[in-house]
Amino acid sequence: MTLPKPFLSDNAAAVHPRLWEAMRKADEPDNPYDGDALSAELDARFTALFGRECAALWVATGTAANCLALATMCAPHGGVVCHREAHIEVDEGGAPGFFLHGAKLMLVDDGFGSEGAKLTPESIAALIDPIRNDVHQVQPHAVAITQASEYGRSYRPDELAALGDFAKARRLGLHMDGARFANAAAFLGGSPEDAARSASGPVDSLAFGFIKNGGMGAETVVLFDPEAARQVRYRRKRAGHLQCKGRYLAAQILAMLDDGLWLANAAHANAAAQEVAAGCGDRLLHPVEANELFVRLTPAEREALRAQDFAFYDWGTDSARFVTAWNTRAEDASALGKAIAAL
Amino acid sequence: MTLPKPFLSDNAAAVHPRLWEAMRKADEPDNPYDGDALSAELDARFTALFGRECAALWVATGTAANCLALATMCAPHGGVVCHREAHIEVDEGGAPGFFLHGAKLMLVDDGFGSEGAKLTPESIAALIDPIRNDVHQVQPHAVAITQASEYGRSYRPDELAALGDFAKARRLGLHMDGARFANAAAFLGGSPEDAARSASGPVDSLAFGFIKNGGMGAETVVLFDPEAARQVRYRRKRAGHLQCKGRYLAAQILAMLDDGLWLANAAHANAAAQEVAAGCGDRLLHPVEANELFVRLTPAEREALRAQDFAFYDWGTDSARFVTAWNTRAEDASALGKAIAAL
Amino acid sequence: MTLPKPFLSDNAAAVHPRLWEAMRKADEPDNPYDGDALSAELDARFTALFGRECAALWVATGTAANCLALATMCAPHGGVVCHREAHIEVDEGGAPGFFLHGAKLMLVDDGFGSEGAKLTPESIAALIDPIRNDVHQVQPHAVAITQASEYGRSYRPDELAALGDFAKARRLGLHMDGARFANAAAFLGGSPEDAARSASGPVDSLAFGFIKNGGMGAETVVLFDPEAARQVRYRRKRAGHLQCKGRYLAAQILAMLDDGLWLANAAHANAAAQEVAAGCGDRLLHPVEANELFVRLTPAEREALRAQDFAFYDWGTDSARFVTAWNTRAEDASALGKAIAAL
Amino acid sequence: MTLPKPFLSDNAAAVHPRLWEAMRKADEPDNPYDGDALSAELDARFTALFGRECAALWVATGTAANCLALATMCAPHGGVVCHREAHIEVDEGGAPGFFLHGAKLMLVDDGFGSEGAKLTPESIAALIDPIRNDVHQVQPHAVAITQASEYGRSYRPDELAALGDFAKARRLGLHMDGARFANAAAFLGGSPEDAARSASGPVDSLAFGFIKNGGMGAETVVLFDPEAARQVRYRRKRAGHLQCKGRYLAAQILAMLDDGLWLANAAHANAAAQEVAAGCGDRLLHPVEANELFVRLTPAEREALRAQDFAFYDWGTDSARFVTAWNTRAEDASALGKAIAAL
Repeated sequence: MTLPKPFLSDNAAAVHPRLWEAMRKADEPDNPYDGDALSAELDARFTALFGRECAALWVATGTAANCLALATMCAPHGGVVCHREAHIEVDEGGAPGFFLHGAKLMLVDDGFGSEGAKLTPESIAALIDPIRNDVHQVQPHAVAITQASEYGRSYRPDELAALGDFAKARRLGLHMDGARFANAAAFLGGSPEDAARSASGPVDSLAFGFIKNGGMGAETVVLFDPEAARQVRYRRKRAGHLQCKGRYLAAQILAMLDDGLWLANAAHANAAAQEVAAGCGDRLLHPVEANELFVRLTPAEREALRAQDFAFYDWGTDSARFVTAWNTRAEDASALGKAIAAL
Repeated sequence: MTLPKPFLSDNAAAVHPRLWEAMRKADEPDNPYDGDALSAELDARFTALFGRECAALWVATGTAANCLALATMCAPHGGVVCHREAHIEVDEGGAPGFFLHGAKLMLVDDGFGSEGAKLTPESIAALIDPIRNDVHQVQPHAVAITQASEYGRSYRPDELAALGDFAKARRLGLHMDGARFANAAAFLGGSPEDAARSASGPVDSLAFGFIKNGGMGAETVVLFDPEAARQVRYRRKRAGHLQCKGRYLAAQILAMLDDGLWLANAAHANAAAQEVAAGCGDRLLHPVEANELFVRLTPAEREALRAQDFAFYDWGTDSARFVTAWNTRAEDASALGKAIAAL
Repeated sequence: MTLPKPFLSDNAAAVHPRLWEAMRKADEPDNPYDGDALSAELDARFTALFGRECAALWVATGTAANCLALATMCAPHGGVVCHREAHIEVDEGGAPGFFLHGAKLMLVDDGFGSEGAKLTPESIAALIDPIRNDVHQVQPHAVAITQASEYGRSYRPDELAALGDFAKARRLGLHMDGARFANAAAFLGGSPEDAARSASGPVDSLAFGFIKNGGMGAETVVLFDPEAARQVRYRRKRAGHLQCKGRYLAAQILAMLDDGLWLANAAHANAAAQEVAAGCGDRLLHPVEANELFVRLTPAEREALRAQDFAFYDWGTDSARFVTAWNTRAEDASALGKAIAAL
Repeated sequence: MTLPKPFLSDNAAAVHPRLWEAMRKADEPDNPYDGDALSAELDARFTALFGRECAALWVATGTAANCLALATMCAPHGGVVCHREAHIEVDEGGAPGFFLHGAKLMLVDDGFGSEGAKLTPESIAALIDPIRNDVHQVQPHAVAITQASEYGRSYRPDELAALGDFAKARRLGLHMDGARFANAAAFLGGSPEDAARSASGPVDSLAFGFIKNGGMGAETVVLFDPEAARQVRYRRKRAGHLQCKGRYLAAQILAMLDDGLWLANAAHANAAAQEVAAGCGDRLLHPVEANELFVRLTPAEREALRAQDFAFYDWGTDSARFVTAWNTRAEDASALGKAIAAL
């Protein structure tokens, strides 16, 4: 019997052994409930990583991480500008409506030189300028971008800088959904610190994802504004996201930061994606910059791949999505690339 | 050097070894994201335990468990009757206001034959009858009780039945905060099934706590109403509480249910509490029925205990709270009882 | 000097003299605060008008009327299907997000045989069927239609019946935004009762607008479901919309119903719109069925009309919107029609 | 037949003739929808009245006025300190929970030198200091006081100054519910400007009530902070409180300000209350400083008064509440005073 070759999603992969180890070590408590020694390390560790003063709080999901951060920059009567296909709009079950108390997601389409669900100052301006100061219209308070984007594209440092300038000029908060931040950072390269800095740019907050990258149940909200950090400590509790044994989440995150495990895991997944991409030729709907591939494939072709034990999701009627992970076997990626090339 | 003797809180205790084992086994995924095989077992397992059809969903915290359940029975314009010292009122950072969209907690005091933060039909009626149908007043939609109560008291089956009848007659939902449900069940006795049934009574929903009882980060919302269960699946996602690797939470819960571990752990904690109680005499502010003790102790007496390495919280100015856990050492409990008796 | 000829909006027109009279008569109070004799008449009067048991509650604005009704049929975690250009989506400052606690507006485009911002069962199904039971997606709880539509189109009785059947089959609430309900009813014809019935169809609730039709500050939420009516009484208070001198609002509404004033006013406005339409030929972007006209006009042509003292809004870059009202002077309407024809 | 002598509530009194006149004059619109000329006058008129830059927006109810103002100073995760018997807590159907998205009302009792439902810095500190920076506890963001208080007591300028200093030191917003602000101002005396200033003190916002004082349906939110004013313009629309014919509300308010009608009306009501008080002797539960009297009266005594056609509410079991209004007949007030004295 052949082993299945999983390319369904990075969010189902096993937990990395170094995280298991770290969690077991956390069995001995220090001070409980948002006060343990491991959680207390986070601020300093992320400040060092980003080279910018920040607060770092664990939460159990990316949805919570995004929404808690956004709630600090968008009042209930305001709006958050994001891409029409942003995860917060299409895949979080209305969580922004909940955490932001009915604030509106204001949707931008590709265009103005951008693609792959990335935003540009121009595309945002085209949406918000015509309604400026119209009391019948929800006004924007913040912008949310996704790094890597919903189509696996990475914002470059200069693109982030331009968005940061724009947001500042318009007095909008700038949040980054980094569910696959590590993959974007790995794509942009350098040491862990370099990668973190070039991939995060001048954002006000970042939902730094670890779960898709070998974690169990810990993401990090990184807040570069102290007042926002103060708020999130209370909002997290209020949202039922303050875990009394949070030390086990902190342990996961710290293990990820140790020796740049987060970047190594992502680099592995990215490399596997490139291996697959090598066989895709012009079937690729988007350049592959992280660990997701969107590939034009007929139903019959998809059927043929599944017959070879490749597991993946359909993407619309004529394409498929493949996702690699920290533990994707090199031989599986290589086999997939070849199988697609051979179709 | 003496080891510290921890009686601060059960919510900081280590994770039980059988849960670690079960989590490691869950490394191999089945279907990801609210669709794994372990999570899928929960409904049947809890239905068997309670002998009543129910749905059972994991969440990371008791706060989320309580609030998700309450949101199914109290509209935003309604109210939830609870005790003035109920955990949802005094210790959850306003979470009910968040999850219930501004619904009001309607506060009952002890009295009408009850004590120790327990409610009675009479005490509830005294609060809600005078405002009935007054459009200027928030109307009650639900009642929330805590089992064991905030002072470690256990509702008896007949008390629960009376509350159930009352709630039904008034068309109020009835929710049970069971952060220490296991301890109440252990106190009420019997097999796991017997204990579960006698401690839960005719409630519509139960936040069944495991974290204080040896878990890591998994509580269970148990819903005896199918429509409520349907809702909670969506509300959980919306609250950022649908973890993509939920199988690790399910694994913890299933391990707790296996061979009645949940009940055994609680029985151990309760026994340790009795051991302590034996030394407290009339210092006890409340009869000890679960794993919490509220003990009259002067500042000097508390100081003397701390000098003997007992760790615990002050409770107001003249008392202290001691909490035992699944892993409280018998010798520590015995030592504490004796130390108090010797004061 | 020429008088201005106002076609900006019906919502700025003067109050009808019979309403002033009725309000003055209401100076003598009966029982205050949601208990006066005039307000108490409303249920019976609307029940007679629609020939269906209903409750009728005044509120100060159409926004409040729509949102209070929708809140009874859509839980915070659900969605309301409406047209992409529905007033509740584009022009109410995010009010649905507020009143519905973050519920999502799910947007339908024209198509499937419909136009002018009207919905059809087919267009709704195309939106909601693909996401059915997907826990990551907000699920629809209700449908909101606008009668007359945002482009002045009227749903016919058979179209309403089809939507009613569809909503019932999918267990969705069906709400009608009737800011210009009177104009649609007048278009569909008959006695006040006939007109009300044919224009409202099998909806669960209706925001029956009077303000654009000669009222001062009173709309009516009509609820055909008694449980919804019970809820709205509380929700109205909670939203700060229970006016202690509500008898003045009831007086306006009752005066509107007396002798079918509401229908006569609307018929007048509609006739004026037809007068204008007569001069528009194929410049009309939408058939004129109520009291709004959307007319293709170049900037220069609009300039020319304004030079003749016609006041109106631009509609995009190449068109204009003209709205007639209960007090539009016949000569102004005729003059406008001729002026457009002469361009 | 004797005329009834109404002392039930000032909120049911007729509309003052000068307001009717002003409303009729407003029939001719200028720019509709939050842009009419009358509404545009408000900011300047209130700025002159208070001698402090402010924005002034009409809304239909005091509930909306209070909640819109409070929402600018208390985030959803925060709390508003108010008296346990504050109107916002006991009589607004949960409106603060709605407008403030679940923020918590934090309740203070009389004491620390205050009475009659007035707050003091000491009583607030006693509530909030013990929970400072506790992440499990909702933290205060604002303080709400009522002028005149729920028991008809007026804060003196020095008391207001002390509260202002306290709020500033603790970085809390300070809001004044002025449903009967005019009555307090009249009590404190002077010209309209003097009265307004001495009664409002250093608050950040004021819900300035006109409806109980001869208005029909217009209260005013006065905001001394420009950023709050900006917010309220949007929040008002979002709450369905932006009336398209708002000019009729502005007309009422402007007529009230003209020649100090607001103060004259209140002075009349206060004088009538004093007339009644003269007969009450030590039956008074609270000193009479505005237009409400709380009078110790047995059921039999109340019965006797009602037999003489006095209409009023019971207040608990042993007392009654009498309220005078702008149109209370002097002979009725005098008769009531005598009737009570004669009991």
